[in-house]
Amino acid sequence: MTSRPARTLETFPNPNPGRDYEIRLEAPEFTCLCPKTGQPDFATLRLAYVPDRLCVELKSLKLYLWSFRDEGHFHEAVTNRVLDDLVAALAPRRMTLVAEFYVRGGIRTVVEASHP
Amino acid sequence: MTSRPARTLETFPNPNPGRDYEIRLEAPEFTCLCPKTGQPDFATLRLAYVPDRLCVELKSLKLYLWSFRDEGHFHEAVTNRVLDDLVAALAPRRMTLVAEFYVRGGIRTVVEASHP
Amino acid sequence: MTSRPARTLETFPNPNPGRDYEIRLEAPEFTCLCPKTGQPDFATLRLAYVPDRLCVELKSLKLYLWSFRDEGHFHEAVTNRVLDDLVAALAPRRMTLVAEFYVRGGIRTVVEASHP
Amino acid sequence: MTSRPARTLETFPNPNPGRDYEIRLEAPEFTCLCPKTGQPDFATLRLAYVPDRLCVELKSLKLYLWSFRDEGHFHEAVTNRVLDDLVAALAPRRMTLVAEFYVRGGIRTVVEASHP
Amino acid sequence: MTSRPARTLETFPNPNPGRDYEIRLEAPEFTCLCPKTGQPDFATLRLAYVPDRLCVELKSLKLYLWSFRDEGHFHEAVTNRVLDDLVAALAPRRMTLVAEFYVRGGIRTVVEASHP
Amino acid sequence: MTSRPARTLETFPNPNPGRDYEIRLEAPEFTCLCPKTGQPDFATLRLAYVPDRLCVELKSLKLYLWSFRDEGHFHEAVTNRVLDDLVAALAPRRMTLVAEFYVRGGIRTVVEASHP
Amino acid sequence: MTSRPARTLETFPNPNPGRDYEIRLEAPEFTCLCPKTGQPDFATLRLAYVPDRLCVELKSLKLYLWSFRDEGHFHEAVTNRVLDDLVAALAPRRMTLVAEFYVRGGIRTVVEASHP
Amino acid sequence: MTSRPARTLETFPNPNPGRDYEIRLEAPEFTCLCPKTGQPDFATLRLAYVPDRLCVELKSLKLYLWSFRDEGHFHEAVTNRVLDDLVAALAPRRMTLVAEFYVRGGIRTVVEASHP
Amino acid sequence: MTSRPARTLETFPNPNPGRDYEIRLEAPEFTCLCPKTGQPDFATLRLAYVPDRLCVELKSLKLYLWSFRDEGHFHEAVTNRVLDDLVAALAPRRMTLVAEFYVRGGIRTVVEASHP
Amino acid sequence: MTSRPARTLETFPNPNPGRDYEIRLEAPEFTCLCPKTGQPDFATLRLAYVPDRLCVELKSLKLYLWSFRDEGHFHEAVTNRVLDDLVAALAPRRMTLVAEFYVRGGIRTVVEASHP
Repeated sequence: MTSRPARTLETFPNPNPGRDYEIRLEAPEFTCLCPKTGQPDFATLRLAYVPDRLCVELKSLKLYLWSFRDEGHFHEAVTNRVLDDLVAALAPRRMTLVAEFYVRGGIRTVVEASHP
Repeated sequence: MTSRPARTLETFPNPNPGRDYEIRLEAPEFTCLCPKTGQPDFATLRLAYVPDRLCVELKSLKLYLWSFRDEGHFHEAVTNRVLDDLVAALAPRRMTLVAEFYVRGGIRTVVEASHP
Repeated sequence: MTSRPARTLETFPNPNPGRDYEIRLEAPEFTCLCPKTGQPDFATLRLAYVPDRLCVELKSLKLYLWSFRDEGHFHEAVTNRVLDDLVAALAPRRMTLVAEFYVRGGIRTVVEASHP
Repeated sequence: MTSRPARTLETFPNPNPGRDYEIRLEAPEFTCLCPKTGQPDFATLRLAYVPDRLCVELKSLKLYLWSFRDEGHFHEAVTNRVLDDLVAALAPRRMTLVAEFYVRGGIRTVVEASHP
Repeated sequence: MTSRPARTLETFPNPNPGRDYEIRLEAPEFTCLCPKTGQPDFATLRLAYVPDRLCVELKSLKLYLWSFRDEGHFHEAVTNRVLDDLVAALAPRRMTLVAEFYVRGGIRTVVEASHP
Repeated sequence: MTSRPARTLETFPNPNPGRDYEIRLEAPEFTCLCPKTGQPDFATLRLAYVPDRLCVELKSLKLYLWSFRDEGHFHEAVTNRVLDDLVAALAPRRMTLVAEFYVRGGIRTVVEASHP
Repeated sequence: MTSRPARTLETFPNPNPGRDYEIRLEAPEFTCLCPKTGQPDFATLRLAYVPDRLCVELKSLKLYLWSFRDEGHFHEAVTNRVLDDLVAALAPRRMTLVAEFYVRGGIRTVVEASHP
Repeated sequence: MTSRPARTLETFPNPNPGRDYEIRLEAPEFTCLCPKTGQPDFATLRLAYVPDRLCVELKSLKLYLWSFRDEGHFHEAVTNRVLDDLVAALAPRRMTLVAEFYVRGGIRTVVEASHP
Repeated sequence: MTSRPARTLETFPNPNPGRDYEIRLEAPEFTCLCPKTGQPDFATLRLAYVPDRLCVELKSLKLYLWSFRDEGHFHEAVTNRVLDDLVAALAPRRMTLVAEFYVRGGIRTVVEASHP
Repeated sequence: MTSRPARTLETFPNPNPGRDYEIRLEAPEFTCLCPKTGQPDFATLRLAYVPDRLCVELKSLKLYLWSFRDEGHFHEAVTNRVLDDLVAALAPRRMTLVAEFYVRGGIRTVVEASHP
């Protein structure tokens, strides 16, 4: 039960490349580990992008997010990492990722990064 | 009981073509099928447009949205399709369509497309 | 009990014509009839304007809105009509009217019109 | 356009008279007149009942509520009147009506009456 | 402009004395003075009662609440006082008054009293 | 794509039959047809039950609810029907079903039925 | 208990005049009288300003707002008056005042004025 | 600036000892220290009581709650301690205290204790 | 980084065993795996209990909940399992556990179990 | 238990200095003392910044905010002070701090300051 999915993002062709339109995805089930303590962190990810030639396939996105479950990542680094991976896979016209992490030490952290 | 309405959008003349004003319609009862699995998908559609010479008649819009009930459509494609059909029927000065689909695979999808 | 008030909008002089400031009025008790079916329609009206030399008197606005109670009007037309009447009476520097109608045929309609 | 519907409540046979179950109806479009001033009053009606042999037909309920539009009624009296009419038409096992009226004189009024 | 209304509560006959039903009134515009400091206090009053032979007339209730505007009263005492006055005027079958006062010294106070 | 799933509810053994505990399921994607007009109706179903020897399997519940998509049913009848089917399949210690239908004719309908 | 405080606004030196920063104050306990009827009006005031050399002292602001308690003022005029008094006392770099009055005649009024 | 107030609760005579009525106080500004780590903890306290012969004076309650600011207390113990102190000072007919502590270790804690 | 904590629940003595009072803990960061698919499931756990001689220590509760992260569990079984473990460790006077799982197959599941 | 932490802000290198992205931190547990009265003040701090070469370490931020606990500060001054300290430690590309203080004298205060 503990084997992890490969880290791949599948795509499908944008059905309307002639129009700039926005796709927004909300994934409230992201979890990874704190690289200092090894304890779990949790976040809701909100992705918004204008596709160029490719859209991200939902099931592969789910598996991709799952692949972080056993890895240690800092809040700031993992948000930029997920954005970079999605930009590399989709080459979108523009993309924004917001990661809302749960309270740690009495403080709630949100990281927002955009491309380009 | 299973015959579907014809896919037509009726219009009526814009009562105030001399003014740019906005009409917003919220239709929370949109459903079609997933083209991969055949299972039902559900969405709330939010339409906003500035009419030029024509406005969309509400009852025909309801029947038009109903006509997708037994067809398979991807989220991104059907949103652009509905926008295209409405633009073709109304030739609005500008129009935006937002489709908010229900959670699939733990992820909520929203697609927003505009004309022009 | 069924006599209707005359359709007049009373005004009073703007106490601060030297400053551009905004007055916002929310009237959740607007009702008229559907010109097709004769059945009642209901809306909340939200008015925002920057007065020039005149402000609208609240009681006369209430009576003015009441005067539509027994008349048939389409959503788009009545919103523009109320805006036109208020613009004619007040000659405001700018004015926006938003009319939020109740659900019909599973669809909620909002009309927003502005002057100039 | 000004003819009013007859005050009748149509019913249909309860499909499950062997079970005590509850039907709740929310009608936010009730309006009548103030018997003192002749000015319009507005309310949201919330009806809950356990049917015995009869259920109320939705369209006739809508027309019934519409029939109060041009009549003068006090808040307390009209709530009891609507409850009495529904009890007479349906003979329900139990029924509760809540009428939430809009602010008058800075005070919001809610009337709740039950049978038996 | 500073004369205060007499402290009287007008009533009208309960139109349905044969039924126990509840009338709920929400008055968010109550203000009196702090008897210690003379500074204004503000509260929202929520009244719920089952009328016996009399109901309270709304306008007189508004004037009655207004009559406290220039008087000094402690939170606990004024809530019981208003309840006592209403019980004396209406002789209701049961009555509850909730007074929600605004924050003082970082603490919000609510007083709830019932008859009988 | 138009073949419908068979109407079956699969179950699995209650893992804790020695304890009365409650399972609550919320399914916001129920749709059937109006038997009078053939037009689509939509509802959110809320199920709560105390299992005896059997629990309902989620995927089969989803397919079961889907099986109503092309059938005509009145609000009151279909709510009792779904409850009856679930009671027949699970023989629960107790069960309640609430069906919240979307606005029709300006009125929102909720039906709540329980076993036993 | 009825003596009113003098209408004065005390100030203290801005601790950071080298930076444009905003102070926002929300005062939900404003009341004055209607100049037509003498009856009380109530509002929540929301003030936002960028201080230059002076900030308003909170206690004196409370007393200043209290000083309107027994005076008659129209909604539009009193909002501009409070803004003028604050601008005269503080000479802020910019200031906005929003006054949200309670429902009168079924209509809610908000007045928003800014300097400069 | 660091001297702490004495831990005393002042009272005043209940103005209506002949009636069982409830006083509810919400104090969102409670803070003490964690006895293990010395770090600050924060809570909102909600007190509800039926006074017998005495009511708690608001300002002394504020000072009493302030007196915990530099002391170490476990969540469960301090809630019972505050309840005990208030019961000792007021001898109320009944009293409930709810303490809602802020998130620690990803877990939110609420403690609710009652007398008698 | 992948070693899991031992499954132990530490306790501390109830500071007020003479009083029945309730402790409520909300833990929104529970995750385990689906025993069928191996994919992650997520839930918010809400625990409420009346301690007898022992209270649960917060940090050990966090580690205990973390210990399920890599295990496969059905919704109904894991809720009863967590309740059983807590009852075994604390022997509380009464305890209720509510587990709110995230949407799967368009359906949201909540399981509520109590002891005794 | 009363020794205070040193006022230091620790940092770590920005993992993505090549991208302008925003980090938002919400700290609802800030408290200091009123310099006039010595009584406690409470605020929620909301920080948003675009890091250049350094990010603030969460635990040191928590300790830094804690260090104000026994000091007297005016609302306006302490907000600017915290912003200045964070700017000095991080040299961010831009930073905004919003401090929302609790009600004092019936008035809620929010201070918002930005760099540059």
